[in-house]
Amino acid sequence: MKENRVFNFNPGPAAIPLEVLEEIQEEFLNFKGSGMSITEISHRSKPFDDVINDAIERTKRLLKLDDRFKVLFIQGGASMQFCMIPMNLLADDKSADYVNTGTWATKAIKEAQLLKKTIKVVASSEDKNFSYIPENVKFSPDAAYAHITSNNTIKGTQFADFPDTGNIPIISDMSSDIMSRPLDIDRFGLIYAGAQKNLGPAGVCMVIIRDDMLERVPDTVPSMLKYTTYSSKNSLYNTPPCFAIYTVQLVLKWLEEKIGGLKNMEKINKKKAAILYDFFDTSNFYNGTAEKNSRSLMNVTFRLPNEDLEKAFVADATKNNLIGLKGHRSVGGCRASIYNAMPTEGIEALVDFMKVFESKNG
Amino acid sequence: MKENRVFNFNPGPAAIPLEVLEEIQEEFLNFKGSGMSITEISHRSKPFDDVINDAIERTKRLLKLDDRFKVLFIQGGASMQFCMIPMNLLADDKSADYVNTGTWATKAIKEAQLLKKTIKVVASSEDKNFSYIPENVKFSPDAAYAHITSNNTIKGTQFADFPDTGNIPIISDMSSDIMSRPLDIDRFGLIYAGAQKNLGPAGVCMVIIRDDMLERVPDTVPSMLKYTTYSSKNSLYNTPPCFAIYTVQLVLKWLEEKIGGLKNMEKINKKKAAILYDFFDTSNFYNGTAEKNSRSLMNVTFRLPNEDLEKAFVADATKNNLIGLKGHRSVGGCRASIYNAMPTEGIEALVDFMKVFESKNG
Repeated sequence: MKENRVFNFNPGPAAIPLEVLEEIQEEFLNFKGSGMSITEISHRSKPFDDVINDAIERTKRLLKLDDRFKVLFIQGGASMQFCMIPMNLLADDKSADYVNTGTWATKAIKEAQLLKKTIKVVASSEDKNFSYIPENVKFSPDAAYAHITSNNTIKGTQFADFPDTGNIPIISDMSSDIMSRPLDIDRFGLIYAGAQKNLGPAGVCMVIIRDDMLERVPDTVPSMLKYTTYSSKNSLYNTPPCFAIYTVQLVLKWLEEKIGGLKNMEKINKKKAAILYDFFDTSNFYNGTAEKNSRSLMNVTFRLPNEDLEKAFVADATKNNLIGLKGHRSVGGCRASIYNAMPTEGIEALVDFMKVFESKNG
Repeated sequence: MKENRVFNFNPGPAAIPLEVLEEIQEEFLNFKGSGMSITEISHRSKPFDDVINDAIERTKRLLKLDDRFKVLFIQGGASMQFCMIPMNLLADDKSADYVNTGTWATKAIKEAQLLKKTIKVVASSEDKNFSYIPENVKFSPDAAYAHITSNNTIKGTQFADFPDTGNIPIISDMSSDIMSRPLDIDRFGLIYAGAQKNLGPAGVCMVIIRDDMLERVPDTVPSMLKYTTYSSKNSLYNTPPCFAIYTVQLVLKWLEEKIGGLKNMEKINKKKAAILYDFFDTSNFYNGTAEKNSRSLMNVTFRLPNEDLEKAFVADATKNNLIGLKGHRSVGGCRASIYNAMPTEGIEALVDFMKVFESKNG
């Protein structure tokens, strides 16, 4: 690895493609010949307009968005969306459906309830510790929207296909799997994703919203919490998080120009995840925690025979420059987060290390 | 100037000390030997804890905050505070006082009104196009707080002293003059500042809040909009804008270790502003727009004899590597934003240029 870099399996903030980081470093004191850093240029300047518009255009091309969709950049992470979505899109006389597949879905539900909105949890995998994705969910025919969490960072599960919601727009938290695969965009009313897993650094949330959803936004919502504030000003109502948007733009450029788009990215991601899951399936020492048909291609959760071994595993891996393999503090165990920016060599290095660790401790 | 850098008079995002930018660049691929970029490390790691805690401790030392005060980092800029303040601190049966000194104060007032809160505009300088700071303001004895904008970026005015509000806590938007001078902190209940002028890059707002204000926060406010969510979790309830906080930390280090604290910073800022204002006072060609006793040490607004000359002035200055001198689009004219990071040499270069421009066009 270059310059003492490590393989970064952190769940988020997470690895960013090295060539993106190098480009940022290279032009950090003088952005595009402006004589200023990207952190110093005006958000109302031509150079920054080029940055944000390029990020939007690349998002539209990568996800094949048509003109109904707006791409917005909002601060506060996905957690801010948990309240913005019901504030903007769920009228007091309507009800929305939520599917509960883990910690983040639970938080989204809690924030809607805190606002005293009417919601219905139409499916949950809490009965088996969120180790699977519910199937054949029945959605309410008159729901304002159907909220799902497409990938569950903590539990290591992922919707392989999106549920059939009929005419009800899907709203999906895609923080940990956006841009990891192509989407059938027609089914979505809103997609949101904190950038710090697959898109760039922490500090910006990408929101993709369909025009009919924008029509629902009530006048009474504070300006900074209204989707229409962002859609009508190209996310420049006030100063946006310029550096984070700039990094997202470079990551999207890498996705388009180096990886070749989302079909290729999906192929690579499937191959990467298969290396780990196939290895689990032949092992009695490492056990995946998610049910097989719900396995995430992004967050691979697993257990060792006992907690002492898990502790030793994480410590030993760290010494071998394999970083961030500890499971979320709420569930324990181990987790390898293998987002778009994790190269196949990182997975191979991890499996090699796992074999050595098992031979010493198994 | 180094590496084709310019003198950056932008109003925000604005100049950042060159040595801060150089330190970021230097360690951008490998933060403190972690093998990861600051944009890739976990916000729950020891290295990031050190960053955020150092930023908080330096803020406390620089502003001489006692234990009653918490330093928070919140996303959404000062504009998000316009709604968070009344949501958190103004009960429905109370009223708050606002002083209107320009565009941003007007927006703060508008957001409180949008929430249907009771507020009273106790003073305004709108009668003279916001060219002065109102004096001898009478505050309501039972106001929940008194909101002021300490420095008006667009109009170039600044509170030289803070008004006497008796026992009423002052809430101040200090986005464009925080850390430019020492404060008598006892008078404040809450101070907020978007980072992108005097603290670092866009994407984080520093909020300094007194413990008795935290007691006012109602349970019904969404988690991400509640001050107590941030105060109880050291701003780490969800993933914070790590890169922005890191840059703020380095700017605060520069302020403490290189400048020597806020008394020194104020001395330098007064000297810098005096160079420009003294020059105006001897000129018939350049005219300051703010009344003399309301002049801002941060944003120096001025006019030339006509708009064509102003246009030529800004264009010519740009060619001479003096960037960002155009006035805000809502008021026209010219403006030199001379925050902490603008060196005295930048002001001298500007005055030299102004003399040459006048000799050619006067």
